[in-house]
Amino acid sequence: MRYLKLTIAYDGTHYVGWQLQANGLSIQACLEKAWHTITNESLRISASGRTDAGVHARGQVCGVQTESLLSCHEIHRGLNAVLPLDIKVLEVHPVPEGFRAINDAIRKTYRYELQSGKIPDVFVRDYAWYIPLGLDVKLMRSAAAILKGKHDFASFQSAGSRRLTTVRTVERLELHERWQSHYQYVSVEISADGFLYNMVRAITGTLVRVGQGKETVEWVRHVLDARDRRVAGPTAPPQGLYLWRVDYPPNCQNPENRLD
Amino acid sequence: MRYLKLTIAYDGTHYVGWQLQANGLSIQACLEKAWHTITNESLRISASGRTDAGVHARGQVCGVQTESLLSCHEIHRGLNAVLPLDIKVLEVHPVPEGFRAINDAIRKTYRYELQSGKIPDVFVRDYAWYIPLGLDVKLMRSAAAILKGKHDFASFQSAGSRRLTTVRTVERLELHERWQSHYQYVSVEISADGFLYNMVRAITGTLVRVGQGKETVEWVRHVLDARDRRVAGPTAPPQGLYLWRVDYPPNCQNPENRLD
Repeated sequence: MRYLKLTIAYDGTHYVGWQLQANGLSIQACLEKAWHTITNESLRISASGRTDAGVHARGQVCGVQTESLLSCHEIHRGLNAVLPLDIKVLEVHPVPEGFRAINDAIRKTYRYELQSGKIPDVFVRDYAWYIPLGLDVKLMRSAAAILKGKHDFASFQSAGSRRLTTVRTVERLELHERWQSHYQYVSVEISADGFLYNMVRAITGTLVRVGQGKETVEWVRHVLDARDRRVAGPTAPPQGLYLWRVDYPPNCQNPENRLD
Repeated sequence: MRYLKLTIAYDGTHYVGWQLQANGLSIQACLEKAWHTITNESLRISASGRTDAGVHARGQVCGVQTESLLSCHEIHRGLNAVLPLDIKVLEVHPVPEGFRAINDAIRKTYRYELQSGKIPDVFVRDYAWYIPLGLDVKLMRSAAAILKGKHDFASFQSAGSRRLTTVRTVERLELHERWQSHYQYVSVEISADGFLYNMVRAITGTLVRVGQGKETVEWVRHVLDARDRRVAGPTAPPQGLYLWRVDYPPNCQNPENRLD
């Protein structure tokens, strides 16, 4: 039995999300079917975490326990040959016995893409959240600074989660701005030791309220202190969210897994 | 009767192209239907040129002759409210009587997007041509230099065209390269006083042969001199092509129409 780590990218637009579901096609189902096609093994492929319908990944990580004798290179090529065009395997690496993509992750990085300006950019309608009238990125950066560090993020957790603690450490929370012609693009990049359910989307929805001038920077401190989801901004829609990168301890980390 | 100039953007993925066709939905049909919805006028909207199925536009220009009393601002807002998410109007401006988007254009700029590297980027499958194994952009730039200027581009014209002359002046032909993680992105930007049918796609297909090391830079000079479509590279597929910008004489040009 070998343990392998797969790094994959997918465009989540046409899927019900990572996880197997009765109501439509999931990324997991496609990957397990592709695995079966090339190895004849029927197995469960588990990821570092679920992504919701419409959410994308540039560097999702999955763990596989296999009896297959195919090399990593053969598995990599084989999977990409049979996977649909919107799911691709980036890397296949051996990892120590017992590797679990969800339990062994030490850091995750997400990116949320916003597009603003008078007119929606037709090319990012499935890849960004459109905010009319422009965002004040300077104000959003000041608000982001309040959320960096170790805090109780209970205000940024959607209902339905069963996490034991809502304390997380946001190691990095950066905003990048780019203009092209009529369009303003703003990326929110966020790394933490773990995320609560919908935490990135709730943080983004909150930063957007500030960027629109609808709330002050100080309001964000109030939201954080309240530990109450109802006081924060809205949950940003799924199509702007990318699972960008998942980090593991050195013995499970492949050095090339750099997605920045 | 007023003459108006519309600048529009569209994602061509789900359309049969600019022009009305019996076999599917065209950009033109959507725009004419939207126009009818807001003005009750049934009229023909003509563009600076057709784009094929799957080809995109960041700055297509159309001409309209209207009796409508709506202001440019009302037309702009009205059209965008009823158009689908993958077609948007960027600008609406009055132009002198007799304006014809196709005849009055003095320069067009296209951009062709290539993506290379070991793995196809799932996010650009409808927006770039995937070339495995990497492109040598330095060689492509040397090849591009041969094509700049006034030449007979007969080798780069697809059959079925009825142009009187195949001489065109390529004023600008630039390559931009960007790397992100596993992915190499190369853009071919080309401005000319006019283009033959499929000229940008034939030039791109030819530059790609050089970038792949399958042909030498000097071969491009041979292709240009041959005035024979059969000796040039393949026609690049439609999904990487963007009509980027169309320029008009100062009295028809709106200064904000900058898409670079």
